[in-house]
Amino acid sequence: MKDVAEVVAVVGATIIDGNGGRPIDDGVILIEGKRIVAVGDRSTPIPRGAKQIVASGKFVIPGLMTTVVLVGDTHTVATLVRYEGRYDELALEAAQIALKSGLTTVFDNYGPRDDLIKVRTAINEGRVTGSRIYLCGGWVGVDGPFSEDMNNNHRQALPEDLAARINARFECNVGEVLTSMSPARVREEIRKYIETGIDFLCVEINVHRFGAGQFFQFSPRVLEAIVDEAHRAGLQVRGNTMVSEEGIWVATNAGVDWPIGGYMTEPLSAETVALLAERQIPWAILPFTREDLEWYQQRVKTGVTNAWARHYKGIGDTKQLNEQALLRAGVPVTLGAGGALFSADARNSYLRTGMIPPGGRTYGVLGESHFYCLLAAQDIGMKPMDALQAASRNIARGYRVDKDLGTLERGKLADLLILDRNPLENAENYRSISVVMKEGKVIDRDALPTQRLLSAPPVESK
Amino acid sequence: MKDVAEVVAVVGATIIDGNGGRPIDDGVILIEGKRIVAVGDRSTPIPRGAKQIVASGKFVIPGLMTTVVLVGDTHTVATLVRYEGRYDELALEAAQIALKSGLTTVFDNYGPRDDLIKVRTAINEGRVTGSRIYLCGGWVGVDGPFSEDMNNNHRQALPEDLAARINARFECNVGEVLTSMSPARVREEIRKYIETGIDFLCVEINVHRFGAGQFFQFSPRVLEAIVDEAHRAGLQVRGNTMVSEEGIWVATNAGVDWPIGGYMTEPLSAETVALLAERQIPWAILPFTREDLEWYQQRVKTGVTNAWARHYKGIGDTKQLNEQALLRAGVPVTLGAGGALFSADARNSYLRTGMIPPGGRTYGVLGESHFYCLLAAQDIGMKPMDALQAASRNIARGYRVDKDLGTLERGKLADLLILDRNPLENAENYRSISVVMKEGKVIDRDALPTQRLLSAPPVESK
Amino acid sequence: MKDVAEVVAVVGATIIDGNGGRPIDDGVILIEGKRIVAVGDRSTPIPRGAKQIVASGKFVIPGLMTTVVLVGDTHTVATLVRYEGRYDELALEAAQIALKSGLTTVFDNYGPRDDLIKVRTAINEGRVTGSRIYLCGGWVGVDGPFSEDMNNNHRQALPEDLAARINARFECNVGEVLTSMSPARVREEIRKYIETGIDFLCVEINVHRFGAGQFFQFSPRVLEAIVDEAHRAGLQVRGNTMVSEEGIWVATNAGVDWPIGGYMTEPLSAETVALLAERQIPWAILPFTREDLEWYQQRVKTGVTNAWARHYKGIGDTKQLNEQALLRAGVPVTLGAGGALFSADARNSYLRTGMIPPGGRTYGVLGESHFYCLLAAQDIGMKPMDALQAASRNIARGYRVDKDLGTLERGKLADLLILDRNPLENAENYRSISVVMKEGKVIDRDALPTQRLLSAPPVESK
Amino acid sequence: MKDVAEVVAVVGATIIDGNGGRPIDDGVILIEGKRIVAVGDRSTPIPRGAKQIVASGKFVIPGLMTTVVLVGDTHTVATLVRYEGRYDELALEAAQIALKSGLTTVFDNYGPRDDLIKVRTAINEGRVTGSRIYLCGGWVGVDGPFSEDMNNNHRQALPEDLAARINARFECNVGEVLTSMSPARVREEIRKYIETGIDFLCVEINVHRFGAGQFFQFSPRVLEAIVDEAHRAGLQVRGNTMVSEEGIWVATNAGVDWPIGGYMTEPLSAETVALLAERQIPWAILPFTREDLEWYQQRVKTGVTNAWARHYKGIGDTKQLNEQALLRAGVPVTLGAGGALFSADARNSYLRTGMIPPGGRTYGVLGESHFYCLLAAQDIGMKPMDALQAASRNIARGYRVDKDLGTLERGKLADLLILDRNPLENAENYRSISVVMKEGKVIDRDALPTQRLLSAPPVESK
Repeated sequence: MKDVAEVVAVVGATIIDGNGGRPIDDGVILIEGKRIVAVGDRSTPIPRGAKQIVASGKFVIPGLMTTVVLVGDTHTVATLVRYEGRYDELALEAAQIALKSGLTTVFDNYGPRDDLIKVRTAINEGRVTGSRIYLCGGWVGVDGPFSEDMNNNHRQALPEDLAARINARFECNVGEVLTSMSPARVREEIRKYIETGIDFLCVEINVHRFGAGQFFQFSPRVLEAIVDEAHRAGLQVRGNTMVSEEGIWVATNAGVDWPIGGYMTEPLSAETVALLAERQIPWAILPFTREDLEWYQQRVKTGVTNAWARHYKGIGDTKQLNEQALLRAGVPVTLGAGGALFSADARNSYLRTGMIPPGGRTYGVLGESHFYCLLAAQDIGMKPMDALQAASRNIARGYRVDKDLGTLERGKLADLLILDRNPLENAENYRSISVVMKEGKVIDRDALPTQRLLSAPPVESK
Repeated sequence: MKDVAEVVAVVGATIIDGNGGRPIDDGVILIEGKRIVAVGDRSTPIPRGAKQIVASGKFVIPGLMTTVVLVGDTHTVATLVRYEGRYDELALEAAQIALKSGLTTVFDNYGPRDDLIKVRTAINEGRVTGSRIYLCGGWVGVDGPFSEDMNNNHRQALPEDLAARINARFECNVGEVLTSMSPARVREEIRKYIETGIDFLCVEINVHRFGAGQFFQFSPRVLEAIVDEAHRAGLQVRGNTMVSEEGIWVATNAGVDWPIGGYMTEPLSAETVALLAERQIPWAILPFTREDLEWYQQRVKTGVTNAWARHYKGIGDTKQLNEQALLRAGVPVTLGAGGALFSADARNSYLRTGMIPPGGRTYGVLGESHFYCLLAAQDIGMKPMDALQAASRNIARGYRVDKDLGTLERGKLADLLILDRNPLENAENYRSISVVMKEGKVIDRDALPTQRLLSAPPVESK
Repeated sequence: MKDVAEVVAVVGATIIDGNGGRPIDDGVILIEGKRIVAVGDRSTPIPRGAKQIVASGKFVIPGLMTTVVLVGDTHTVATLVRYEGRYDELALEAAQIALKSGLTTVFDNYGPRDDLIKVRTAINEGRVTGSRIYLCGGWVGVDGPFSEDMNNNHRQALPEDLAARINARFECNVGEVLTSMSPARVREEIRKYIETGIDFLCVEINVHRFGAGQFFQFSPRVLEAIVDEAHRAGLQVRGNTMVSEEGIWVATNAGVDWPIGGYMTEPLSAETVALLAERQIPWAILPFTREDLEWYQQRVKTGVTNAWARHYKGIGDTKQLNEQALLRAGVPVTLGAGGALFSADARNSYLRTGMIPPGGRTYGVLGESHFYCLLAAQDIGMKPMDALQAASRNIARGYRVDKDLGTLERGKLADLLILDRNPLENAENYRSISVVMKEGKVIDRDALPTQRLLSAPPVESK
Repeated sequence: MKDVAEVVAVVGATIIDGNGGRPIDDGVILIEGKRIVAVGDRSTPIPRGAKQIVASGKFVIPGLMTTVVLVGDTHTVATLVRYEGRYDELALEAAQIALKSGLTTVFDNYGPRDDLIKVRTAINEGRVTGSRIYLCGGWVGVDGPFSEDMNNNHRQALPEDLAARINARFECNVGEVLTSMSPARVREEIRKYIETGIDFLCVEINVHRFGAGQFFQFSPRVLEAIVDEAHRAGLQVRGNTMVSEEGIWVATNAGVDWPIGGYMTEPLSAETVALLAERQIPWAILPFTREDLEWYQQRVKTGVTNAWARHYKGIGDTKQLNEQALLRAGVPVTLGAGGALFSADARNSYLRTGMIPPGGRTYGVLGESHFYCLLAAQDIGMKPMDALQAASRNIARGYRVDKDLGTLERGKLADLLILDRNPLENAENYRSISVVMKEGKVIDRDALPTQRLLSAPPVESK
């Protein structure tokens, strides 16, 4: 029998439920335990004894969601070495900073599988507080952070055993080694990998090494084998297509559910846009504010010579035009990469070398990135309601977790934000968070993170 | 009306016609103009007035054939820079050294298309003497010699304009740029490329950059488009699969006629061997002598760290076992890469850095490589007749020029070698060349090459 | 008034006092507090109530001494990053492993000054146990561990701020920055540096970057200014001459007390040997066992291409001949570099890349290195007594601490080792340590190190 | 007995004789054979039969002089490889372009000794036309163009034998190998080097490798030995001090006649300025126009990361201030580096990578550089007459050839330029060359160069 004390009512706010309809002014959301039991206007009956959260003049939206890299700052040798053996702690710190900033759910897209599972379990069991985590571990076909695929220079700065040990936590036997296996052996490895309890699968369609994004990691039949194993296990499959339009075709032909990429230097063909629209295949966009776009383009012109320049080349009018074409065609767009946590050292380095624009507002930084992204969406002309859905409902659908998440509806988990100002008026208002509620519980944001590692100031000498 | 003086009779030799049957002792080959009109025993009637070449005690075999790189030493910045504008002369020098050493036909597998066409035409029109050349230009999908695909370090040592100008002679608009084009645009470029008069098409199945051989250059539908265009134009297609067994499947599925590769580090699966055998798909092998094999394997063990080491890893028991498995299964095997011409500087450098075994006998060196290869075939246990066919008839079939070439038969072009000693007794005897005849004409071997560029001694100071 | 309980008598052992004379059989050493009050034969009167350490059949020698790098494994990014902020703990661990292995005094020749001072003070004040430390901080004129001078690749793998912060702990404003200062400004910086409490000064005579060892860091007048400031402050000056014979002259002309180096690829001239002998300038040698010497020489021959190869070139017959010439000429030779503590990762890496010989016995490893060195000294033909003095008295004299250290004599600090077997018979016997006494106290060797950081096994995943 | 026909009179021009006095309007210069026999006003008697060059309204100045690199474009692998064996032809082409642009004498400061001697001799003997050449060969202590000292990347792109062969032409046994020799052996090598017929000696004071300019190549006693050998042979010695102020002291203390350098990042001390002024030691300045200076400084700010950036850092207010301080102090200043001939490829590359400012007017380009330099001198405020002397008389004095060269005076060689416009009014007017006369002969400028190699357009495909 349920206890009346478990009922919470959010009262008086404008409710933007994420379904795209007209917001409910002066509305009521009733929550029993972890789930929403009613969403309605002022006339909604509130059970006696319900705990009331009065939010008059405020705005309620679904908890935000995004793709992240929790064991973060992965490109920096310093972080992964310094915290070897403590990656679960890094992941928790990140999940807490995410939650604090309104991300009630995060989808980790590259990380040390077992450490992430450990934290996911601890959060799900209520032992610690943090964003809800869905995870895939590493990318199938790609090696760990200290490898030719990711950061070869750093690999060479480390003792081999150390690099191999750290890489192994990300690769879990499904890295580049698969590219020289037969389909049958690949299937076997994927099965073992899936059994450990990942939530979805990420597979590399195109080569990840910088500057080589247009090549293909797997033969079609091997790729199909990988996707098939995931689907048999009921997992959804994301496929990383990098800069390659052909990659989208290869991925979807093999059954990949959600191709990601988008730094094409050429306009997408009408044929490809139609493919995504007709099959309602989700597409994650990474819009830039006008200011930053100009800055990146300027960087390319003035001869930035490091590997990132190749990425920058894909940032520009073409990217903008492609994303607008996808929006127009009705492709279910999601709002992008929530980034990673950077140490102060790494952040300063990225600022100095221009990998982060001067303002420091960018996709890279977990806790800031999703706000930036919503602002940039506004800048490129997305409708406010579309942008909100791209950061909540569409992501839930993309990851196939929309049964429980993504909108404020009866039966769904009570993940919501109460904002002081209207986010549909100005995307800057997403920052005006008053309350973060996850599964019906108000989060004590001041208590997060419970431990500062990467978010701490630099080590001082004693 | 034919002039009797045009008839030549090779008389008295043991004739090994390349069809695999028992050699004809004390035989007669009659040649009228460019072609063979009769092959038989001593009883074959010799027209009055025929010019007789008495070869008693000697051995006649078909002219040898192999795959080469005529504008050679391509990995060495020095050569391509020093001789910029004179690549046709380099190609001619190489074609003459090839002919002198018994290669009556060569198939150029990577070169500057227009320079090669120029030399091919000059030879075919009889204006100059040299091996018969078939050519493909560059590899579809691969950039020129000073590129990330081939030799990035050398690219960086050259002024950009110079590197780009040289690369362009090899790329001819069908290099890596195709990997970011739509199928339709790729077709268009391939059509234009084919129209210039190449003899066959080489397409990159797997990425050529060292250490990245297991990735795929093109999506299946783009690869199919490339192959289709070549087939429409009546051209045969070779596909470079590098170290990737999956590459063989990708290639053959797309219709590629002749996949090449073979540095797999894993044993080929029975399935793949069966595929090649059943469809009688040719396979080029590159056997090593026992001595060299040990040397290469030792190199890998003692920690050779340069890019070549990755290749060496594919040289070993596995390679040997794979080649033997293919032979047993009846795959139509050909004998391999005839190499390039090296400057003395380059040759010394390769010897010093161990890219060439201490004896200097290897695949690399044009004019030596095919002798080495026949010897190594003997070393790995190929039957003498199989080895001879692998260096003549099988290659002619592989390249679809067996109507005119590859065996000593009535109607075929009179390309033949007269050897002092029996090559079926010992493969070393291929070196005992007494006469090289091409299209019925005895070649003045002492006159070749007519100009020494790469084959000259190093520049001396004045 | 002294307490009788403070007197300790080591009784019955063969005493090798380090002065080079005939050992005393069945001897007695009396210690009162920290100091030796008598050394003699059995007839030496032992005060009533003295604590007796019976060592019959054993051998007493002075505590061993050597040059070390306490904050060790300095070339490996992993260590310095992982333990940032805890370098004092690394130093203590190293000082304890040193003491445990018989090194009662160590002279740190490259380290983070302030962290070393902290540990030195804690040991001197008796708050913690460890080898007695003398230190110089970094090398004057040389940048920190993540710099072009030391490990440029690793520098590039780190965020700039982090690299700069770590470097600063070693540079302390007297790194390469001095090379662009006027003599007056250099003096000023050196004065400030000395005031912090270093024990001696190390100055770079020749450039430290690999392969550039024959260049000179400072102009003569700047070098003289540096030496002069150290001498005014009563500090002894070591000068690093790397591979350069000229460096020895530059150093001694500038007043440097103890030039170090020794990887000359050419034989030292008679003139240079005479200079060192006449002025009795100490010289640290690093002999190799015959076995290792052959191994290193083999490495050079087979084309080791990394930076260490340049060092190896200096290891060979020439080195051996030079060291023997110095011994013959009567140069006061010391036995060499006691190395650093390596993590298991680093050690494995060095073994794999051949920076450590297969047996793993080398100079590099703190706690092993001095044993190895004594063994190698025996191998190159040093007399047993000379070798012992080279590892005790000569080092004490070289560093000008022989008033208190280096021999077993009345008035000196009671630093001694009791060995089970005679070290003058076989240098392997130095390992047979029964007791380590430092300042009259028997060290509980089993309790050391009190904390395992670098000496711990690799981090295991949780 | 002299023939009257040998007398030439330049009549009617304003004569600026280079001695710094007031120009002579409507003057007369009489030349007999190679030498000037009179300089005076209109009243100067002109021998009957003298050939008259009427130059009314024009301006006569001494032939210009500068330091050059004749076998040029030395940093580009392409040039030295392509023209191996023909460096004498490159040198002649450069000497002709120099002469054509008003440089009647050039001092080659880095080149292949024997090729330069060959051309110098041919010019001096009148067999070919070109600037008068003085040469030193390579720099003592520095390796050839494909070495760690100069261009290590390019070295690695070449076969070792080729790189070594080319390097040897510049090193001639007095390269870096000297740094590991004893003073006695160094003397011996220097003596042999000098005997081949060089005109002056260049010695490296500071290390030439980029970023290492503050280190010293030789010990003082070795440096003194080198200088002493040159002085015994009557040769003047230049010393390259790079960015090091201490280098100036080291050089002058060792007896070097003319230290060069000047990219100090710090202001020169008053002491150093005084040293140069008091001893009247020449100093070569390389002023930049205001426009270019700003451009270079901007480059440094925006994070140019290649090796040149280190040089740029030395270009700025500090450089300008230093040069002005030297001028004020009365140091005998010369105007700088006349550069090298660049191929079109190299020039485009340098423009693209910003090693040459956008306008392409810079020190680098032979034939342009001296005009640029005179213009920049004007820009930084040098008095017109001082600038002219810095480009003629001061250089002649600096190289100790002022007995014959540098001014228009009775007895000196008749090297002069007739300009259309007054160079003292505007330094741009140095370009208005009407006549170049060398040793009394009017040069047919249109005929130069007699062969175009580097100055030709890029190789076109046939």
